[in-house]
Amino acid sequence: MLKWCVMPNKIVCLYSGGLDSTVCLYLAREQGQQIIALTVDYGQLHRKEITIASSHAYELQILHYHLKFNLPWKGSALLDPNILLPTERAESEMKDIPATYVPARNTILLSLASSCAEAKGACSVVIGVNALDYSGYPDCRPEYIQSFQDMIAKGTKTGVEKHPIKIQTPLLQMSKKEIVELGLRLKVPFEKTWSCYAGKEKPCGECDSCILRAKGFSEAGVKDPLTAAESKAHGA
Amino acid sequence: MLKWCVMPNKIVCLYSGGLDSTVCLYLAREQGQQIIALTVDYGQLHRKEITIASSHAYELQILHYHLKFNLPWKGSALLDPNILLPTERAESEMKDIPATYVPARNTILLSLASSCAEAKGACSVVIGVNALDYSGYPDCRPEYIQSFQDMIAKGTKTGVEKHPIKIQTPLLQMSKKEIVELGLRLKVPFEKTWSCYAGKEKPCGECDSCILRAKGFSEAGVKDPLTAAESKAHGA
Repeated sequence: MLKWCVMPNKIVCLYSGGLDSTVCLYLAREQGQQIIALTVDYGQLHRKEITIASSHAYELQILHYHLKFNLPWKGSALLDPNILLPTERAESEMKDIPATYVPARNTILLSLASSCAEAKGACSVVIGVNALDYSGYPDCRPEYIQSFQDMIAKGTKTGVEKHPIKIQTPLLQMSKKEIVELGLRLKVPFEKTWSCYAGKEKPCGECDSCILRAKGFSEAGVKDPLTAAESKAHGA
Repeated sequence: MLKWCVMPNKIVCLYSGGLDSTVCLYLAREQGQQIIALTVDYGQLHRKEITIASSHAYELQILHYHLKFNLPWKGSALLDPNILLPTERAESEMKDIPATYVPARNTILLSLASSCAEAKGACSVVIGVNALDYSGYPDCRPEYIQSFQDMIAKGTKTGVEKHPIKIQTPLLQMSKKEIVELGLRLKVPFEKTWSCYAGKEKPCGECDSCILRAKGFSEAGVKDPLTAAESKAHGA
């Protein structure tokens, strides 16, 4: 019979290469966790985050899984170039779920990470979701995370054996400013993170993700080394 | 803003090419549902079910998505050739979760199917899980399915908008005998279904899946056309 050994200091960290997931990764490192980084390439158009994640994980010498598949049904501006990325959404639109929402994305990511955690004997899955300065996605809210945790406890061997995988969301209730400040303390190389949805060589500065990132750096009173380096390179 | 139109007669059917999922597919056809079949190749060693699913879906002329990726962490006899398939488990072992359990498999499958359903405007996901004559997997139990349904309602746009995706499990409380009988009524071509876990050219007859299938046909008092055809071909 196959046995899983759940190690209290072994975690799976969902790692997209974005600012939030990189801060999570560095937080886990600081805590001395044994980290398995998991990057899921689900066909997102902003492929640069994947490249950055892979090379950064390699530099950090952590075990890194990179899963690749396409969601052929698309249904999101992050997957379908024919759907316009929303830019500068009006205040009245901010309560709507934007076109960048990918159907059931975090459920797919957490399912894969939970599978990895169970197979590799990790006790937790870390995901950098945030419910304050965020795009309004339903699968970033605390009630969703709690519900996923309840579900995975029922649907896994470790759950049935009373060692359910714990879903850790260290950034859930932090503002972008606080996330940037935490990253600064952890010495996260922000120039090696990527947030822009537009899938171009440089951050567009206009999509939700660029706007939230800029807000975080601005409120923390520091320059974003990613955009600063680019401004410098272009003589700005 | 992106809108999803939820059509009451459009469903996503998880379709592995096995007996149970094929019966589900034929049941949905009988009910006049508009079907999207979804086959997920997650690296299972018994690849014949995938080939059968693809050619059968093509014959039936239904929309068929085929997702392919590997779960590199394995952790299951269905993924790792170094883990022995359990055969003829003793009565005392039947309450254990067997080595063929794939960590969080049904959660991965249902997540992908829910994503597809939301993107394509389908109201339901159909999965052929069974909690009576089954291998004891935790993610085949009614409490798990209910929990997944609660979770997906919280983690999706359609859920938040009060049209949550419904997880349909028509075979959940049926015995294998009843599933075979239902398949007979629906004229399911059983010879175009594949159950064996062993990943060989012919069913092994010894794995849990072969044993459960044989039990169903035997109790229904009919010959399994898949094994009957092979016995005939070999002069048995």
